[in-house]
Amino acid sequence: MRRSMQPLPDFSRLSLNQATTEQWNLEEAVAGCVRAGIPYIGLWRHKVAEVGLERSARLLQAAGLRVSSLCRGGMFPAATAAERRRRLDDNRRAVDEAATLGTDVLVLVCGPAPDKDIDAARRMVEEAIAELAPYSHRCGVRLGIEPLHPLYAADRSVIVTLGQALDIAERFPPEQVGVVIDVFHVWWDPQVYQQIERARGRIYGFHVNDWVAPIPDHLKARAMMGDGVIELRRLRTAVEAAGYHGPIEVEIFNQALWDTPGDQVLALMKERYLQHV
Amino acid sequence: MRRSMQPLPDFSRLSLNQATTEQWNLEEAVAGCVRAGIPYIGLWRHKVAEVGLERSARLLQAAGLRVSSLCRGGMFPAATAAERRRRLDDNRRAVDEAATLGTDVLVLVCGPAPDKDIDAARRMVEEAIAELAPYSHRCGVRLGIEPLHPLYAADRSVIVTLGQALDIAERFPPEQVGVVIDVFHVWWDPQVYQQIERARGRIYGFHVNDWVAPIPDHLKARAMMGDGVIELRRLRTAVEAAGYHGPIEVEIFNQALWDTPGDQVLALMKERYLQHV
Repeated sequence: MRRSMQPLPDFSRLSLNQATTEQWNLEEAVAGCVRAGIPYIGLWRHKVAEVGLERSARLLQAAGLRVSSLCRGGMFPAATAAERRRRLDDNRRAVDEAATLGTDVLVLVCGPAPDKDIDAARRMVEEAIAELAPYSHRCGVRLGIEPLHPLYAADRSVIVTLGQALDIAERFPPEQVGVVIDVFHVWWDPQVYQQIERARGRIYGFHVNDWVAPIPDHLKARAMMGDGVIELRRLRTAVEAAGYHGPIEVEIFNQALWDTPGDQVLALMKERYLQHV
Repeated sequence: MRRSMQPLPDFSRLSLNQATTEQWNLEEAVAGCVRAGIPYIGLWRHKVAEVGLERSARLLQAAGLRVSSLCRGGMFPAATAAERRRRLDDNRRAVDEAATLGTDVLVLVCGPAPDKDIDAARRMVEEAIAELAPYSHRCGVRLGIEPLHPLYAADRSVIVTLGQALDIAERFPPEQVGVVIDVFHVWWDPQVYQQIERARGRIYGFHVNDWVAPIPDHLKARAMMGDGVIELRRLRTAVEAAGYHGPIEVEIFNQALWDTPGDQVLALMKERYLQHV
């Protein structure tokens, strides 16, 4: 397979995830994508809220920019049933927002345990997705479980491997619950290529960036494609071999990029996308 | 099983891993363990080298302190065959040192990839262990593969799960190659309890500490038992149910502990050991 790995021919699948340009509000990011000829954007709810939901939808439509996904739903486990219900309500609002913004993918970062009982938290995630899935399906929105790197098992997600995410997704029809594969979160996994093949028909998104060691910061830990150790092209080729040919989001939480003018970030990201992804 | 989880009755299995008291040289650590009534110590090669191998062995024997393990062999993958041979030679010296120091466990931190090819690096690890195992067996030393948290996949070890470590260990007799289970490295793994049960007969060591989020530093990332989220007693009970009743090493890389007088660290560690492990 490796011999047949080809660079991407153009930018037709490229998506700017807004986390990469934290310095820009939604209006600036939309304009930046248009200037750079980037056809997709991955949105964050807090960035949408800043500008307003309806106004965001109008800006995107006027620009002809397609929305690859909305980040994020999830954060399901909580100590009390009342708090878990509150979070489910918030997830239903996230589904509504996704539909209004014109994307059919809501990315789920499932959340940490409220205490030390990680198994109980994992059951809360499964129960919440089972409650949310029929609603999101009626709204035309698919739920993409994003397994997070085990680095975040205590504070962001008890779902930490692609295999574990698929164990949950496979309880639902493939058009309702699937996975979002971010190279940063899965590259280390000895089973990643088997699990990507297993994910066929359920891959709702593919995120690229890179891993440098030592990570510079717990949350702002990611690097530009090509600066780290991840076999990006091999992973992208594997995801395509498993049937995914949708948008490729560049999602990089990185302070140095946030301190750089956004247009420069987009130019570098386009260059590295063709070179390394 | 959880109902039957009991605290440890005493300190008869407690071991001070020298990484917890970086501020002490070997002579100071030996004296500290004697003062604190800690019966085992886990040694590091650079700490032994400071004092000298023969002198270290005499100090330990005179103090009646048992050595639970020697850290560390490993670091096998390298870009050239010559460098890989050099590292194997160094591992044979580590085996010799373990035997001289009176421990039959050499802990293996297997090493990162020399480039982006993580599969090739994993094959290099397997080949190196296959070369090292007959030698270490003749010396009466067992090789304990320590899977490291995926946080360290790029700079410390391409072996990142207990299942992966066991896949390698099971190619050898159970008295030659096994695993060392450190709670910090494995607690997040959805398969950890199945893999602990699978490890029966091959568990050569058990390390305790804790995980706090966000981690304060890439390498000095660990916390004192009870300060974080790890289900320590559940993991210890599982390891015992799988047949391990040997020493329990406290291994904590933590700057605040290194800035504290060693005797205070040992007192705190003893208290938390009975409370949380």
